[in-house]
Parts: sequence; C-alpha cells; structure tokens
Amino acid sequence: MTIDLRSDTVTKPSKAMLETMMQAKVGDDVFREDETVNQLETRIAKMFGKSSALFFPSGTMANQTALKLHTSPGDQIICDKYAHIYNYESGGASFNSGVSCKLIDGNRGMFTAEQVIDAINPDAYYYSSTRLVEIENTANRGGGSCWDFNEILKIRKVCDENNLGYHLDGARLWNALVEKKQTTEQYGEVFDTISVCLSKGLGCPVGSVLVGDEAIMKNALRIRKVFGGNMRQAGFLAAAGLYALDHNIHRLVDDHKKAKEIGEVLAKLAFIKIVEPIETNIVIFELNNDVNEKEFIQQLTNKNIHIISMGTNKLRIVTHLDYTITMHDKLIKVLQTL
Amino acid sequence: MTIDLRSDTVTKPSKAMLETMMQAKVGDDVFREDETVNQLETRIAKMFGKSSALFFPSGTMANQTALKLHTSPGDQIICDKYAHIYNYESGGASFNSGVSCKLIDGNRGMFTAEQVIDAINPDAYYYSSTRLVEIENTANRGGGSCWDFNEILKIRKVCDENNLGYHLDGARLWNALVEKKQTTEQYGEVFDTISVCLSKGLGCPVGSVLVGDEAIMKNALRIRKVFGGNMRQAGFLAAAGLYALDHNIHRLVDDHKKAKEIGEVLAKLAFIKIVEPIETNIVIFELNNDVNEKEFIQQLTNKNIHIISMGTNKLRIVTHLDYTITMHDKLIKVLQTL
Amino acid sequence: MTIDLRSDTVTKPSKAMLETMMQAKVGDDVFREDETVNQLETRIAKMFGKSSALFFPSGTMANQTALKLHTSPGDQIICDKYAHIYNYESGGASFNSGVSCKLIDGNRGMFTAEQVIDAINPDAYYYSSTRLVEIENTANRGGGSCWDFNEILKIRKVCDENNLGYHLDGARLWNALVEKKQTTEQYGEVFDTISVCLSKGLGCPVGSVLVGDEAIMKNALRIRKVFGGNMRQAGFLAAAGLYALDHNIHRLVDDHKKAKEIGEVLAKLAFIKIVEPIETNIVIFELNNDVNEKEFIQQLTNKNIHIISMGTNKLRIVTHLDYTITMHDKLIKVLQTL
Amino acid sequence: MTIDLRSDTVTKPSKAMLETMMQAKVGDDVFREDETVNQLETRIAKMFGKSSALFFPSGTMANQTALKLHTSPGDQIICDKYAHIYNYESGGASFNSGVSCKLIDGNRGMFTAEQVIDAINPDAYYYSSTRLVEIENTANRGGGSCWDFNEILKIRKVCDENNLGYHLDGARLWNALVEKKQTTEQYGEVFDTISVCLSKGLGCPVGSVLVGDEAIMKNALRIRKVFGGNMRQAGFLAAAGLYALDHNIHRLVDDHKKAKEIGEVLAKLAFIKIVEPIETNIVIFELNNDVNEKEFIQQLTNKNIHIISMGTNKLRIVTHLDYTITMHDKLIKVLQTL
Repeated sequence: MTIDLRSDTVTKPSKAMLETMMQAKVGDDVFREDETVNQLETRIAKMFGKSSALFFPSGTMANQTALKLHTSPGDQIICDKYAHIYNYESGGASFNSGVSCKLIDGNRGMFTAEQVIDAINPDAYYYSSTRLVEIENTANRGGGSCWDFNEILKIRKVCDENNLGYHLDGARLWNALVEKKQTTEQYGEVFDTISVCLSKGLGCPVGSVLVGDEAIMKNALRIRKVFGGNMRQAGFLAAAGLYALDHNIHRLVDDHKKAKEIGEVLAKLAFIKIVEPIETNIVIFELNNDVNEKEFIQQLTNKNIHIISMGTNKLRIVTHLDYTITMHDKLIKVLQTL
Repeated sequence: MTIDLRSDTVTKPSKAMLETMMQAKVGDDVFREDETVNQLETRIAKMFGKSSALFFPSGTMANQTALKLHTSPGDQIICDKYAHIYNYESGGASFNSGVSCKLIDGNRGMFTAEQVIDAINPDAYYYSSTRLVEIENTANRGGGSCWDFNEILKIRKVCDENNLGYHLDGARLWNALVEKKQTTEQYGEVFDTISVCLSKGLGCPVGSVLVGDEAIMKNALRIRKVFGGNMRQAGFLAAAGLYALDHNIHRLVDDHKKAKEIGEVLAKLAFIKIVEPIETNIVIFELNNDVNEKEFIQQLTNKNIHIISMGTNKLRIVTHLDYTITMHDKLIKVLQTL
Repeated sequence: MTIDLRSDTVTKPSKAMLETMMQAKVGDDVFREDETVNQLETRIAKMFGKSSALFFPSGTMANQTALKLHTSPGDQIICDKYAHIYNYESGGASFNSGVSCKLIDGNRGMFTAEQVIDAINPDAYYYSSTRLVEIENTANRGGGSCWDFNEILKIRKVCDENNLGYHLDGARLWNALVEKKQTTEQYGEVFDTISVCLSKGLGCPVGSVLVGDEAIMKNALRIRKVFGGNMRQAGFLAAAGLYALDHNIHRLVDDHKKAKEIGEVLAKLAFIKIVEPIETNIVIFELNNDVNEKEFIQQLTNKNIHIISMGTNKLRIVTHLDYTITMHDKLIKVLQTL
Repeated sequence: MTIDLRSDTVTKPSKAMLETMMQAKVGDDVFREDETVNQLETRIAKMFGKSSALFFPSGTMANQTALKLHTSPGDQIICDKYAHIYNYESGGASFNSGVSCKLIDGNRGMFTAEQVIDAINPDAYYYSSTRLVEIENTANRGGGSCWDFNEILKIRKVCDENNLGYHLDGARLWNALVEKKQTTEQYGEVFDTISVCLSKGLGCPVGSVLVGDEAIMKNALRIRKVFGGNMRQAGFLAAAGLYALDHNIHRLVDDHKKAKEIGEVLAKLAFIKIVEPIETNIVIFELNNDVNEKEFIQQLTNKNIHIISMGTNKLRIVTHLDYTITMHDKLIKVLQTL
C-alpha cells in the first residue's frame, strides 16, 4: 500500500467517475460544440453568479489567462510572497503577460487591505502601473489557510477605489467553502475572475475553470487559443468535473479531519519544531534544525509514505480523496513510532 | 444522418478506443508519473528516431512551443503564406515568442529551397534575425498537398548552411506518410522538431506530440508549463493516441480515396470553377463568381451536410474516420443532383 | 570631396543650426522641464492640429511607440511589404508589442483601400485581431514615392468602418508635403498618430516626434520610458529641430530637383535596366543582370562617391542638405562617363 | 537663486562642456560612423578593461539592454527591493525582457552573498530560472550607499557557482569610486556588464554607456535598435561625456562633502526623526510623524529650494555640479532656521 501525500493532485478517478466520463457526449470544442464542456461551463458560471466560464487544461493556464485579461505589458500585480502565480508558474506572469508582481509579506499567504494600499504604486510614468490584486484561497504555501471573508471584502473596496481588478486563484476554493461554510455565490459577487480546479480536492484527472462576467471574459477564448489550450473532444474531461461537483465537494471535510489528526500527532513529536495551523487538507510542519530533511523524507519513503519538501526544513502533507481511512490509520501509527 | 465534413477534427472515439482510454494506467503527469503518457511519448520519439517527445493538449501548443524553442524575441521565421502558425494560431508566434514571419508566396502551401534562400534576411542589426524554417505537411490550406521529399531535403541543406532551425508542422503528416509511402524515420532524420496531431486523421479526442532531440527539447517541458499545458492524469488522452497509432494510420487511404471521388464529382459540376488537386483527405474547390458561397453552404446544410468556407468563394471538404461509406454514397448523390 | 548619397541621415548641422543648439535653454526632460523640448513638441503638435506630441531619440522609437499605443500582444498590423516597421526595425513590432504584420503587396510601397479591406482578418478567435493600418509617406523602399491623398482618405474610411487605428510613418513626410504642396494640417486630420523625423531631410543630428491626440498619446511618455527613450537635457537636440522647421523644409525642393536630374542621367546609361519613378529625394535604379552590383558600388567608392544597395541588384541614391551643387555637378559628370 | 536638490540629473552643461560639444566631429552612428561616439565607447571600454561599450540615450535603456542580454523570457533576476530596475523603469524588465525580479530585503539597497544564495530558485521546470544578479552602486534609494567590495566579490563567486550573470547598475558608480578610492578596472574585472551614467554626477546633458566583453555584448547594438535607441549624429552628446571624464570625476568629493554637511545640520533638527548614513551625494532623512511632508517641502519651495519625497515621510536631497558654495551656504542657513 502506497500512501501518497505529496499533493491532492495525485488522485485517480473512481470507477463511477470513469463511467460518467466514458458516457460523455462530446463534440469539437474548438467549434464550441462539445456539449459536456458547455454544460460544465454553464453550470460553474451559474454557481458563481457569473455570465461566463471557460474550461482549461490546467489551473496554471486559467490563472495565466486571468492575468492577461486584467493587464497590459508593464503592469504590476499585487499578490502574496507565497502566491502560486509568482512562485510555481515558471515565471509565466512575465513571460505571457509582460507583468511583474509586487509581493506582500503576508501571514500564511494572506494579507490585509491596508497592505494592499501600501503596495499600490504612485501614479507616475516611471512606476509600473498597478492593475490587479490576486489572492489564493486556500493559500497552498500558507498551509491551506483560509482567508477572512471580511478582509476579502475590504480589499474589494480598495480595488474599487483604485481601479484595480481582483482575481481569486481558487485552486482549492472548494476546501475553503466547505470548511468555512461559504458559498460560491458570495465569492462570485466579490471577485472579477475566479479560477477553480477540478483536479485537486475534487479528484478529476484534468481541468480548471475560469469564471467571470462577459466584459472581462470576452477575450478568454482567444487567450486560451494563443496558449494552445483549445482541446477538441474535451467532454471526457469535463464529464469528470460534472461528476465531481455532484459527489466530491462535501466529502472534503473528511480530508480536513484527517489533516488535523495528522497535525495533532506531529505536534507531539519532539523533533518537530512547529506544526503550522491546519484549517483544511494541508499540513505544513518544520523539522528541528538538527533533523535532516532529506533523511526524514527517505525514512517515510522506506515505509512507502510519500510527502514533499517546501524548502528550508519545511515539509508538506496533503490529504485527499484517495487517502483512505486504512492509509490514515497506518500513517498515524508510523508517525507515532518515528 | 449528419454528414460533417468541416474538418477531420470532428471525429469521436470509437467504442474500442474509448475502452482503451478508460483502462489506461494514469498518474500525475506534472510529476511525470503518468505511465500511459510516458509510453506514448517514448513510442512516438522512437518512431521518429528522436530522443525526446512531449504530449500537448493541442497542435497549436506543440507548434507554439517549437517556435519558442527555436527562437528568441525579435527573430524571424520563414514559412508559407498559408501556414497554420501564421494564420490560425491567433497571432501566437508574436504573442508567445515575440517573433515575426517572413511569408513565402508558395504553391499550394509548399515552397522551394531557392525561395527560402531569398527569404533569409541579411546579417545586419537592423534586420530581424532569420532563425527557423517551418513547413506544414500535408499543407492544410494548400488542400492537403504533400511536399516533395527532395525539396524538403534541399531546404535542410539551406538551413544547415545558414544556421537555421527546421520545424515540421505535421498535424496531418500521417496522411502524407500513407499517401507517399514515406516513414516517420525519414522525417525524423531531416527535421529538428516535428509536431504530430492525434486528433485529426487519427481520430483521438485530444492531443498532439512534439518530438526532437534532447538538445532542442530540453526546455520543452518548461515552455509547456509556462503556457499551462501541463495536465495531471492525461493518460486517458494518451491511451487514445496509443490505440490510434495501432489502428488508425493505415486506414487513412480510405479517406483519401473518398476525397478523390468527391473531387471527381465536383469537377463535373458546371457551377464550380476549379477543384484543386487532391492528394489526401482535403478537397478545396472554388465556386463560379456568380454562385453565392453562403447560399451554397446553406443548401448543403439543409440536407444535413456540413462543409466550411476558406474565404473568397473557396470551400473545403475534409474526409475522416467518422465519414462512413453510407455517408459517402449519399454525399455523392446529393452533389450530382445539385 | 566625399559625396555621400547613402542616406539623407548623414547630414551634419550647419553652423547656424549649431549655434541655435548651443544657445538652447534646457532642463531635465525626465521631469518634463526642458523648455526647448516642450516648445518643439507644442509647435509640432500644433502644426498637425493634434493635442499632443513627444520627442524621441529616433524614428524607430517613435514608430515602435505608436505601434504599442495602437495594439495589444497578438494583434496584427496591415502595412506594405516594403514598410520600414517590418523590414528595418530589427523585428521590433513583434519584440516590443508582440504583434505581427499582414503585408500588402503594394505598388512602390503604396497600396489601396481595397487591398486593406482584403487584408483584414475575419473576426474569429483563432485569427490575429487586425488593429492598425500603417503607411509610410514618402515610402523609402518605394523610392521616395508619394501617396495619393485620395487613397489615404479612402483608407481612413476603411479604418473607421473596421475600428482600426491609422498610423503614418512620416520619416520623410516633409518631402511629400513640399513636393505635393500638401499641409501638415491635412495629414493631422486623417491620421491618429504621425511620426516625423528631424534628422533626415531636415538635417538635424538626432530626433523624431510622434503626434496624436491625448486619447491615444496618454501612454506615450510611459512607453518611451519603458524603452529608455527618456533623455535629460534634450533641448540641445530639440533646438536643432526648431531651427530646421524654420529653415530646412522648403529647400527640400532642391534635393528633389537634383534627384530627378540624377535619374535622367541614369536612365540614359546602357547598363542600367530601370530607374524607378523619382518623386522626391530618393533614386532607386536596377543594374542589368550582367553588371555586378558590388563592383559598381566599388567603382563609385573609388571616386569618393558613396551609395548603397537595396538588394537584388537595386541601388539607392538619396539627395540631401549636405549634397551641394558642386557635388552634384561632379556626380553627374562621373555618371555620364561610367 | 533657485537651489535645485531634487536630483543630480538637473545639471546643465558648463560653458566649457558646451564648447566641446559643439566642436565635436560627428557622423551617422546608425552606420557606426560617429567618431566622437566611437571615441567615447572605446575610452570607457578601456577604462573598465572590457572589449566593448555602447552609448545609450539613457541609463534606463543601458540597464534594460543588459537585462535582455543576460536573460530569456520567463527568467528571474535577483536584485534589491530598492533596485532602480525594479522600481523606476516603468516595469521595463517584464515588458522588454519578460522576466521577473526576486527582491532581496537588503540593507540600504545592499545585500549579502548569503542572501543571493537563498534567492536562487531550485532547478525545477515550474520555477522561474534564476539567471542574473543585479546590484546598484551607489544605491540611489539606499541613500547613495557604497557597497563593500568584498561582498561584491563574494557574490561574483556565487554567480560563478550557479551560472548567473552579474550586472552593475553604475548610474552613480563614479561617486563610489571617488569616495572609496576604487578603480574602474577592479569593477570591470568582477562584473559581466556595467552601465555608467554621464548625466548625473558627471553633469552631461544626455547619455549612459554599457560595457562588457564581446561575448555578452554582441547583441547589444541590435537590442538598442529594437528599443529605438539608435541616434544619428550623437557625437554632440558623446563629446560632453569625454569632457566630463576629464574634468568632472574627481570634483565629486565636493558634492559628498556638502552632502555630509547638510546631513550634520539636519541631524540636529528636532523635527527630523532620522538622517540616514551619508556616504556620497545623497541625503535621505525622515520627518517626525507629526510633521507634514508636503508642508515641509512647500516651506522650502517658498524659499526657492527644491527637494523631493521618497514616500512615507522620507525626503531626499542630492548635491551636484550645479550646487554652488553660495547655494550651500544659503541652504545651511535656511535649514538652521527652520
């Protein structure tokens, strides 16, 4: 039994999801004729109360398209120093859109409206033009942390006052919604664009969706094509998304519960310096300085348990759909005996 | 019975292909752990005698990645005025790579080594640097035309003498191979990079593959990530490709035969000015000036037959895997009675 | 006595121009406090009936800024196959703005409104978006050819109907104005942006100016800064421009007269295949196939006469402010004895 | 008497400099035939022991060209959070080169080799590729601070070990050289590229120079052309540079002395919270929280003394060539009576 806790992206479709995929009615989405893709886009747009949605082969492309829709070359984006768009998208913001990031030194990937105000450049031609605020909820490198919705609203106000777009990287928004008992509608009301991922907590093999109103989304199809994200009979992938929306959202509470239980065990281990607060399905903990990170990971690997490093002696565990209760029991035991 | 001849991209997986897809062993390809994707990439690389291959969600992304691998911003690409990369990729060459195209006024999408020499810019700093020659075989807008392999070799020589890369957009290379009894190996020997499509003649739902040697391909994974073309459990799509390589290449002769038969019928119709030479599965014909293109298309649509316009009274018919003999018989009859 | 006819850019300031330069009142133009720069910009804006003008270190930068002001990455520009922006700006349109050019096969660098209509891309997301029409008057590689103002007006109408910007590369507009007895005002009324050069026919050492109305020009200062075109005490250069506007425009008729006289002599030479029509200060002629271009140029160089090749046995002579009557007499004699 | 201490860029050429300018032998630098430009480039290259140098209309363009020479789109540059290239070049690094900055939280604009090591991205395809370390000496926003040359050497070692380029923004390098008794040669030995400014401390009206060895500089001319930085008879500007190299370097000690004297006076003022260490010609000081920055600046403006804000109640005074001893005496008196 392999226990893979490196990411919630390692899940494989269940038999039921696979059957739904296989029965999907498909068409050529380049002609916009794939009815399953269209159904998924319509459904997710409606969930967020937006007029438009577009299916993407990855969350990276959904985010990169959003950045392009909001900016022109030379502009600047305000985001957290932990932001996925800055750290883990291969420098795409600058490559694809010619923009730079003004990083906020936030708290577990989250920041305040006050910090946004400070990060806005003065209005002079030798400064980059601040155009967009981007947040990530839950914040991956922040340890699956959940934003305070009031702060999200305050930042919206700052955006309005400064003519800034507002994008949510919702790769793991489903986790926040379930944990905080929030709704897609309330997020749709606040943000101009939101990307959501189907292949993390929701367990689909491939796909993300970007939603927004027509005014901002009208070039999304074109940008997706520029990147080469136009697929043909993508309905097989979209079908998994529809299945996941029906079956895999509410169960995320299980992943969260397991993550917290893992955290409790880790917190008692002497060689662990700190376990970061656990709100959803991500556990980030730091080893004592005298513990060798690679050796620790190897020790787990030897027991067929896989986790990854976040750098500087920090490690990450992510619970997910394919992490069963049997695996959980085994992991707890292994950890307790380390 | 709908007869859809707008493109060979409208095909849907057969039951057998679908079953292969659903039985695929998958993994997280972002970690490069999807064994079906790996198997497909290895197989196609080997077919072309190259050391590296990468799976893409679209032929556009495979091409755009190739352009980026060969060039730096400001460089220039030599290609035909009909080239897909210039005409149908949303301006991606300039958007993604910052490069321009020097268009050759070729013959049915094909040009000569002599024309390439003329198109190379002088070596002065105020000219764009010529860096790449790109050809398309078969040439889509050239009417599925097949390049003379000797000319391909002559252009290789020009590339060598002028330090130019050489990329083949092989979206429909399979058709050329089957028609001209050529091999993947002989193409692999000539070109630095080749993109092939799995979703046109081969009938897969999604996917293209870019092949090349490690020296040029070493950044391909990074560029694909920048565009957001990294998918997770993409093995479901790759499995269709493996199936198609086994079953759907040789049958392309049927598509070609049907296309030629359609051409013969069209050639006898009084209101058709010209039927371009038909070598593979594409039929391009031009209506007489006094025939209204839209009305003609509508007339066919009324009979549930769908074809598309190439502009300026030219129309295109594309035969494919899902165009059955029954449909063919009906189409021939309809055409004869127009 | 060196006779340099390679370009009208080789002129050096006259003593009077130099004295004006030396007495210029200058300031830090990065703070927009150089009063001579401001005076030049205001004057040229007014000449064209536009609300805004900006001084640039080169015509290339003025043009590149205009392209950026009119377009977004991925867009397409319609221009002549001879266009300076396509051929002689180092691929800058794609490098700086991420745009491509749709080249029209014009007549001596000039084209028709009908050709513009044909060059506009259909409105589909897989085509590049056509956004701008750019013309060059006089057309350098067209042999200093002058556009028919009626055609210019017709193209304006096409631009209006298709929501396209309209930019004039007026590097040698002064020559056209003088030759055709046209006015800056009438050009200002038609075009959205116009670049004019001070360092060609007008004889200044450095500088071009871009004019347009505030709506389109509002980001020009920022784009100039991005390129690094912001200079400090640039008033010394601007002063030469002011001098030239006063003294060097009307005398362009002399350059034109000399060019035509040179053309008449060339036309009689047996080894010259063709002399292109001469309208202003540029003479383009083609040698017979059996005449070696390099040898011909060398023969002149030996007599201290310098001209340049345009490629494919075509040569260019450009008359200018520093090409005196004495030089002219000598050149005529030399040509007649070749 | 206006006392302008906003920047050392406000200087105007002295009579002697102006006379040198006007006697310059010039030519068309686009053909590389301006002998004064060539002389300046050769001289500065030699001063730094480099094989190549290029004259630019601005320091911004010299820096932006360097960034482009060292990087490809998607790459990352390590620099200080105060870096001019990140803060004051209109987002040019991302616009022109498609790169991002990894900002180091340095000390007065300076950082350590250790911090550079921490800032290098891991070698994985989803991270941006770290390619260049950029430092600024003196550091403008650091208050004209001078780098410890030993740290500069240590960073060179880190660059070597990690295959990173090393660029020096030497806009005010002359000040550091004079203050620290360092030489151009020792800087030339360490850095791959160095930009130096002629229009700040040296008092020229326009111009910067980028130096480096041929291997890295071979595309500099092309990049300058892409930006439109190619000027024609630029020798008038270059002549000022040659004059300044002869006459205006050693006198910088006077500017430093005056700056320190101003600092001493400021340090005694009750309403000033802190005066940052003064090493060269820049004085940065912070007002107490209860002092209104705008009112303070206005008070000085009323006395015809001009300084600028650095944001958040910090102000900057810059001494320079045109700041005479008479002005200095007056300023000291005014400050003492505030």
